[in-house]
Amino acid sequence: MTLPDLTGDRPVALAEPGARDWSPRAARARFRAGLAGPTAGVAAGHTQANLIAVPADWAYDMLLFCQRNPRPCPVLDVTDAGAATTVLAPGADLRTDLPRYRVWEDGELVAEPADARAYWRDDLVAFLLGCSFTFEWALAGAGVPIRHVEQGRNVPMYVTGRQCRPAGRLRGPMVVSMRPVPPEHLRAAIRESGLLPAVHGGPVHCGDPAALGIADLARPDFGDPVEMAPDDIPVFWACGVTPQAAVTASRPPFALTHAPGQMFLTDARDEQYRVVGVD
Amino acid sequence: MTLPDLTGDRPVALAEPGARDWSPRAARARFRAGLAGPTAGVAAGHTQANLIAVPADWAYDMLLFCQRNPRPCPVLDVTDAGAATTVLAPGADLRTDLPRYRVWEDGELVAEPADARAYWRDDLVAFLLGCSFTFEWALAGAGVPIRHVEQGRNVPMYVTGRQCRPAGRLRGPMVVSMRPVPPEHLRAAIRESGLLPAVHGGPVHCGDPAALGIADLARPDFGDPVEMAPDDIPVFWACGVTPQAAVTASRPPFALTHAPGQMFLTDARDEQYRVVGVD
Repeated sequence: MTLPDLTGDRPVALAEPGARDWSPRAARARFRAGLAGPTAGVAAGHTQANLIAVPADWAYDMLLFCQRNPRPCPVLDVTDAGAATTVLAPGADLRTDLPRYRVWEDGELVAEPADARAYWRDDLVAFLLGCSFTFEWALAGAGVPIRHVEQGRNVPMYVTGRQCRPAGRLRGPMVVSMRPVPPEHLRAAIRESGLLPAVHGGPVHCGDPAALGIADLARPDFGDPVEMAPDDIPVFWACGVTPQAAVTASRPPFALTHAPGQMFLTDARDEQYRVVGVD
Repeated sequence: MTLPDLTGDRPVALAEPGARDWSPRAARARFRAGLAGPTAGVAAGHTQANLIAVPADWAYDMLLFCQRNPRPCPVLDVTDAGAATTVLAPGADLRTDLPRYRVWEDGELVAEPADARAYWRDDLVAFLLGCSFTFEWALAGAGVPIRHVEQGRNVPMYVTGRQCRPAGRLRGPMVVSMRPVPPEHLRAAIRESGLLPAVHGGPVHCGDPAALGIADLARPDFGDPVEMAPDDIPVFWACGVTPQAAVTASRPPFALTHAPGQMFLTDARDEQYRVVGVD
């Protein structure tokens, strides 16, 4: 498995002598200082998180939306209104420590800053949701190739034709991430991700993209297209960009999210979320 | 594994020829007609649920309390305000279809009716939480004896010294259920319950009750004491009675819950909640 070098150099293979990985704290400091880019492969073994922050009067709808759609929206933490801190990473600042943000007004994307302090509001409640980058370490550990990391690209993400269960004023389609998996690794990919239900769990679909209403794998809605080996099977996992699709569909007056693929790095360890007692 | 016969006769062994089990729908109809009693062992393979309903202006605190304490409070469904129906059991009425209810005013238990219609309010939001009775079928299927069912008793439950993570106005200690497990079955008990995180998952503690602040296993706070075989290890799972302890500690103006051990029987199948792809 390779590590994308977010300083702009070529990806660095983790297995190479001298390959560098960052602690979550060091990565957050670099992002705070202005570095941006996808976070797949960064901070080995540490849980990454999607961000969706909404005004307090939308917080119940958002929390209920997450509860009703746990595959795309597994909640790892919810902040108190106005607090930019989380129990998942003491000392971190949710306004500055992500690589890149998206700012939404009435469902429209209005800015993509690397620092969200100018947009922060005291009535914001932030939701941190599990991210599939977390289980990539488990997949890699089981020998499953992670094509988008090998190719130094962001994971491809697609808006599906499957509607989430609505909650209050929130509705919208499920978004999925896709990883090409060689058939001989399919079982391990399903098992290893399945053991991490807090970070989307097992796939929602394997095979024909049309079953999810996806017309063309080469044209993802977010992230980058990824090259598939001839026998690879496209495997789809529910994705934490789903709340952004709900923002687009439901038009809350304001929302602040991460940019797809550019996640919040928590101090939590992946194994904290692994189903216990299963060997 | 035996099935408690809620008509008042002796428990019926499921394995016996002619042993009778009920469908969830048939069980709910009997409870609606006035039957009351613990539901462990009823409606094999169907998911049971704890009930906590609070006024809408307490719903966000309750949902956040559940999110922050997912081991004792795994949310299976949340109703819209005033709705007494749930996607988990189409046609069921949450006001009548549980064996017995508890009615709380300002944190005090004021009634234990078998029918809650006289107490229902149009602003109530009902939370249905996973119940450990669900994984008892998986344990039994793996050969783990279920002592309280063998003995025809309600499962013993204890208020622990462990505080839940507070949420808004809600705080309180974690409640646990206890099952004595022979040492040779401990691994299976941990594994099988661990594969069902939506119904409390694996144990929170095995062994010395004092580690949880429990003084005397013979005096449970809810349910019945259960007899342990000489080598049995007490195994503790987080329990969906925890919100009732939060009601006692936090004193919301009103709450409606199930009576401990007398659960809502859903139409959902246990395997829907089982971690996928793990064999």
